[in-house]
Amino acid sequence: MSQRVMNVGLIGYKFMGKAHSQAWSTVGKFFDLDLDPVMKVVCGRDAEAVSQFASRWGWESHETDWRKVIGRGDVDVVDISTPGNTHCEIAVAAAQAGKHVYCEKPLTFTVDEGKQMLAAVRQAGVKHMVNFNYRLCPAVSLAKQIIESGGIGEVRHARFTYLQDWLVDPAFPMNWRLRKEVAGSGAHGDLGAHSIDLARFLVGEIGEVVGMKKTFITERPAEGVSSGLSATAGEGTEKVTVDDCSLFLAKFTDGAVGTFEATRLAPGRKNFNRFEINGSKGSLAWCFEELNSLEYFSTSDPAAQQGFRKIIATEGVHPFAGNWWPPGHMLGYDHGFAHAAYNLTQSIANNRPCVPDFHDGVQCVAVLEAVDRSEEARQWTSVEVVD
Amino acid sequence: MSQRVMNVGLIGYKFMGKAHSQAWSTVGKFFDLDLDPVMKVVCGRDAEAVSQFASRWGWESHETDWRKVIGRGDVDVVDISTPGNTHCEIAVAAAQAGKHVYCEKPLTFTVDEGKQMLAAVRQAGVKHMVNFNYRLCPAVSLAKQIIESGGIGEVRHARFTYLQDWLVDPAFPMNWRLRKEVAGSGAHGDLGAHSIDLARFLVGEIGEVVGMKKTFITERPAEGVSSGLSATAGEGTEKVTVDDCSLFLAKFTDGAVGTFEATRLAPGRKNFNRFEINGSKGSLAWCFEELNSLEYFSTSDPAAQQGFRKIIATEGVHPFAGNWWPPGHMLGYDHGFAHAAYNLTQSIANNRPCVPDFHDGVQCVAVLEAVDRSEEARQWTSVEVVD
Amino acid sequence: MSQRVMNVGLIGYKFMGKAHSQAWSTVGKFFDLDLDPVMKVVCGRDAEAVSQFASRWGWESHETDWRKVIGRGDVDVVDISTPGNTHCEIAVAAAQAGKHVYCEKPLTFTVDEGKQMLAAVRQAGVKHMVNFNYRLCPAVSLAKQIIESGGIGEVRHARFTYLQDWLVDPAFPMNWRLRKEVAGSGAHGDLGAHSIDLARFLVGEIGEVVGMKKTFITERPAEGVSSGLSATAGEGTEKVTVDDCSLFLAKFTDGAVGTFEATRLAPGRKNFNRFEINGSKGSLAWCFEELNSLEYFSTSDPAAQQGFRKIIATEGVHPFAGNWWPPGHMLGYDHGFAHAAYNLTQSIANNRPCVPDFHDGVQCVAVLEAVDRSEEARQWTSVEVVD
Amino acid sequence: MSQRVMNVGLIGYKFMGKAHSQAWSTVGKFFDLDLDPVMKVVCGRDAEAVSQFASRWGWESHETDWRKVIGRGDVDVVDISTPGNTHCEIAVAAAQAGKHVYCEKPLTFTVDEGKQMLAAVRQAGVKHMVNFNYRLCPAVSLAKQIIESGGIGEVRHARFTYLQDWLVDPAFPMNWRLRKEVAGSGAHGDLGAHSIDLARFLVGEIGEVVGMKKTFITERPAEGVSSGLSATAGEGTEKVTVDDCSLFLAKFTDGAVGTFEATRLAPGRKNFNRFEINGSKGSLAWCFEELNSLEYFSTSDPAAQQGFRKIIATEGVHPFAGNWWPPGHMLGYDHGFAHAAYNLTQSIANNRPCVPDFHDGVQCVAVLEAVDRSEEARQWTSVEVVD
Repeated sequence: MSQRVMNVGLIGYKFMGKAHSQAWSTVGKFFDLDLDPVMKVVCGRDAEAVSQFASRWGWESHETDWRKVIGRGDVDVVDISTPGNTHCEIAVAAAQAGKHVYCEKPLTFTVDEGKQMLAAVRQAGVKHMVNFNYRLCPAVSLAKQIIESGGIGEVRHARFTYLQDWLVDPAFPMNWRLRKEVAGSGAHGDLGAHSIDLARFLVGEIGEVVGMKKTFITERPAEGVSSGLSATAGEGTEKVTVDDCSLFLAKFTDGAVGTFEATRLAPGRKNFNRFEINGSKGSLAWCFEELNSLEYFSTSDPAAQQGFRKIIATEGVHPFAGNWWPPGHMLGYDHGFAHAAYNLTQSIANNRPCVPDFHDGVQCVAVLEAVDRSEEARQWTSVEVVD
Repeated sequence: MSQRVMNVGLIGYKFMGKAHSQAWSTVGKFFDLDLDPVMKVVCGRDAEAVSQFASRWGWESHETDWRKVIGRGDVDVVDISTPGNTHCEIAVAAAQAGKHVYCEKPLTFTVDEGKQMLAAVRQAGVKHMVNFNYRLCPAVSLAKQIIESGGIGEVRHARFTYLQDWLVDPAFPMNWRLRKEVAGSGAHGDLGAHSIDLARFLVGEIGEVVGMKKTFITERPAEGVSSGLSATAGEGTEKVTVDDCSLFLAKFTDGAVGTFEATRLAPGRKNFNRFEINGSKGSLAWCFEELNSLEYFSTSDPAAQQGFRKIIATEGVHPFAGNWWPPGHMLGYDHGFAHAAYNLTQSIANNRPCVPDFHDGVQCVAVLEAVDRSEEARQWTSVEVVD
Repeated sequence: MSQRVMNVGLIGYKFMGKAHSQAWSTVGKFFDLDLDPVMKVVCGRDAEAVSQFASRWGWESHETDWRKVIGRGDVDVVDISTPGNTHCEIAVAAAQAGKHVYCEKPLTFTVDEGKQMLAAVRQAGVKHMVNFNYRLCPAVSLAKQIIESGGIGEVRHARFTYLQDWLVDPAFPMNWRLRKEVAGSGAHGDLGAHSIDLARFLVGEIGEVVGMKKTFITERPAEGVSSGLSATAGEGTEKVTVDDCSLFLAKFTDGAVGTFEATRLAPGRKNFNRFEINGSKGSLAWCFEELNSLEYFSTSDPAAQQGFRKIIATEGVHPFAGNWWPPGHMLGYDHGFAHAAYNLTQSIANNRPCVPDFHDGVQCVAVLEAVDRSEEARQWTSVEVVD
Repeated sequence: MSQRVMNVGLIGYKFMGKAHSQAWSTVGKFFDLDLDPVMKVVCGRDAEAVSQFASRWGWESHETDWRKVIGRGDVDVVDISTPGNTHCEIAVAAAQAGKHVYCEKPLTFTVDEGKQMLAAVRQAGVKHMVNFNYRLCPAVSLAKQIIESGGIGEVRHARFTYLQDWLVDPAFPMNWRLRKEVAGSGAHGDLGAHSIDLARFLVGEIGEVVGMKKTFITERPAEGVSSGLSATAGEGTEKVTVDDCSLFLAKFTDGAVGTFEATRLAPGRKNFNRFEINGSKGSLAWCFEELNSLEYFSTSDPAAQQGFRKIIATEGVHPFAGNWWPPGHMLGYDHGFAHAAYNLTQSIANNRPCVPDFHDGVQCVAVLEAVDRSEEARQWTSVEVVD
């Protein structure tokens, strides 16, 4: 452990707040860090609930007003785990207060807001990171290494699907993720954003898109008591204002072509975040539902022995994996968040750029927006290039 | 076996000619037919080669001019297994001669030609069938049964990919499948046509599309001595005039949305003809590379026991399967062609419509054409409805 | 095609008779043979039924007494596809008549009988082959090549399971496969024999075994009208006199150790003939339920990229595969029988030894017998080495 | 969180010590507990190293003599995570001091020692639990529920393999797991013990066994600097005194039969802890390498729709799963240890028996011992029934 500390202030304590808390409490045990993260303060609007959360998760203190967290002198990093409609205001304020900013995805709902955030962190000279956690599964990081080393040659095809099924029952009641003003969009920004980030990470920038969204279940029971992704219905119904699914075609600037699909209405697909990439010399495929494995095909293997090999990315030679358990002792969803906490901590400690940063976050939103515009125009549409 | 015979004349004796020959020589052994197919005559332009083929495969006679086959009084069915640029002329002539017509896919290159063929067979009152063989894998036929019985509810998502890799090596030389004048298109018509047919079979009609094609390897070594899908290069190079891949989005007329992708440049994917269909009550997935199995998820299963079940469709209760071997004794590629021969024979014997017929063939081409037009227009485009 | 013919006489026309008939009628179409097999005569006890079979499958003639087949001067090869209790008598007589002998597995029920058969064919100087069809799946033949080329180093572990489920329902009625006097044993000789042959083929000779058999369902409804593996019950019940399952451990003479299990009472396993072999430098795994694929792990792959690769053994470089269809066009159960017919024909044409021959057949029975003796003795038991 | 605390003293801080520490620091965040576990003290022989461990993992204090931990009045539970040769002495002393005892597997090397431990905890009236963590994967607990509810009927076949490959390289140096005096045995007690426990949990007691062990690599480079399962070699070589693998057949007392195999020499198998269980009405299969999924086949499904369904056991209706993340957000290796910590805490808080307890631990050793005796006797051997 380091002698120096890095004080973290977390805004939001629901699903993402838990995931971030688990990461902050775990990362220093398994990884050698150049700064010791301290779980300084957590913030939520319900005083009683956030107090219990702080006690349970080991946060030293708690607040009900995020402005107080930003105003505290003992906070170095502001970790924003709230719904997307609050990201811009909090992040800009945090940057202006000189805090490093770590923000959940999608970074914002609009490129315009994203540019404000980017300007704020750049002007303040603080570190900024957006949490695209799937980049940090060891198998996905390994895919990146293989691509960069030429292991599949020049990329030609990219195929991304992110399928879930938790909204397939029309009796599933409303929650904030189904309201446009809070969530921005539905599967498009929630799931599609992950696919777009993986595509940018693994393949490159997207130049043009054409696509559409659709809402199959347009009205749902009003919200009752909810917790996480499960809920009980209240009385009456409410109009769903976000999409159930989005799908689009993409032309990458380097010549590759891609298909993207995101939906929460695919029965049996629980968190089926999958990609397949075909290059001139090989292919890679991965799916979160079997997150520890990467499938790799190389045309360099002997002709009679070529085949997709299933690499279980839990060896010491694989990214991040050696810090946890012996080979074959599988990692789960939350381990990726510890990898993000590791990256952020080391970037701050050593004054290195974070990856993925707010620019990645905004450029991802630019793709989402281009799909929206293509839908309205019913035609291929250019993606804005964010500086 | 029946007392009555049905004389078959086959035009073409390469890859598809072999597959059809194997079907005609096998179907009567495993299936009870109401007419006995007789392998009467096979036709090819190279007299020596077609003579050897006839001898080897058990065709009673051979011709070098397809018009002679059509002119023979002892031919009941004309089976067209030639490249697509010859289908229209042969099929129209065969129909006019009063022959039943069985044609390989794609039926034609244009809707206009397809309408001529359709008019000819309708006017002649002959049976007509197009060979979309993948419909007839038992697992795919089972998928159709499950959908029709409501087993996945209302279809919302359809996802079709047909991936091969035999053209990934730029040193692979030209052959007829890479020349637009003979093949019509590349992956689009060769592979995409199969996906479109499966989509129409399982989901329904496609109303609108937007898509694109791309040729990554635009020049290849000139053709040398070739055989089937393998070949050796000649001298010089030749320009590739068809696409390497096509991809498009689709809106089905009943409200479902779909993604389609076909390519011959996906390393490691040998014959990866896959679909996944998500409905309001379940999902189905199938891939030819594991052709005997259908994956089925039902929301009707007990909550704690839901999961994709892998149905090995080789039981007596599954379509076609009981005619072959005991359960678990897997079928291969060629068995599907026997199923087509069975369907055609029984339709003719009992004067019932064939499925899929020339209308299915033309409507499939209408979707292919709509994608072409959408590519030029860079926007969503309606699919022509063929009467 | 060759100018010379090889006349085949088939004894038996049920499940195996069909599989052999399909092989003889198909092999010459896809493979270049040095002798043309002629389907000369088929033999069965029911004159009407065998006549129909001959007509349907293209056998030139039929007989009801196998001795007549053996006595015919126009028969070169006697193909024995009858239940095991008849193999010895027919094979010995055939050899004595100077016929080449091709026999279904298990070759016999006892090593003693097997030795008689072996002596007879050796004395007569005729070719002899036993049909262990799973050796001849391209993926299994490829496994053999990889092992022989050192691709997995020295074999240490062999794991064979052959699981079916067609007898799991106690209401499934008796048939000949459940009567010891006709079938010899149950899963042990029917399924276990296949595993033992694959083990001998891929790993080597077995020196010692210890094992057991068990019959869970000891009485079944009497046999009614049956066909193949399905049947309807007659009146009353009948005692089952064979095992439902067998399981044993094995020490190979070269130091490897193995586990073997065969059962017909494994719900959901249709024809789950699987092996996994672990060597000092790699592993191989295969299962008939996905027969076209071989899984191969090599410790020679780069450390970060090691994984089981799934080789789809349908390429021209794979054993047998290039004779059929293009890559990825899957083979099924019956194709393996054509490979056996090819091997036999070429051995006879070129006066080369057949593989696997009667010695392989008897040595396999010697392992089965050793398991039986070990069961009685309740201890490790040596396998007789047949000369 | 509860108002009452439960003070834990951990002995051992290597691989298992880390896994237990992570469990104790995590369980109270995700699970509602009736006692709050407090990480009171950790014990190791190297003062400097254990001090650092305590600081990093949040243990309040540290000791270098386990007797001091047991002597402390502020310790309620002694958690033994040391190698097996120390378990008996520590556990007996802890029990005599009135502490609840939580012990890693294998509980001991001999049934005799195990009986001493069992007598001690019974006499002291303390809670006792052995850590067979694989029982507590949600998918395995679900398997138990399905079996208990009759979902596969009467069990007939049990097939357990536990394969790893970390010792396949002969250059891998010696460590304590390869020395009989410290580890007791090799794969047999390390991996086989897990399989035996799962078999007892899911199927029932084992009555008779016959088996063997084998050491393929009998000498290895001397131990150098090691850490966890990786190591660098020192000078010279050392004799390996444990087995590389064990394999045995088993007769369960209720009539089922089983095969067991454990090895650390199976290239490509990283933590391949797999079982398949076939009953009269269905089958279950699970493998740790895809730990979140359970495969289930039921003969109750409609005939044409039967198939192994892959249940992703991450839903709220699945054991333990609802306490973590939304459906499809996969769990890893360490989550199972939190489940054990939960079970132990709740048992102590509510004065309920722990499962699995020391009796389970000893009975597991009884099976291991019976295999050893069967190996010496070369014959089937009864398993001692521990009271």
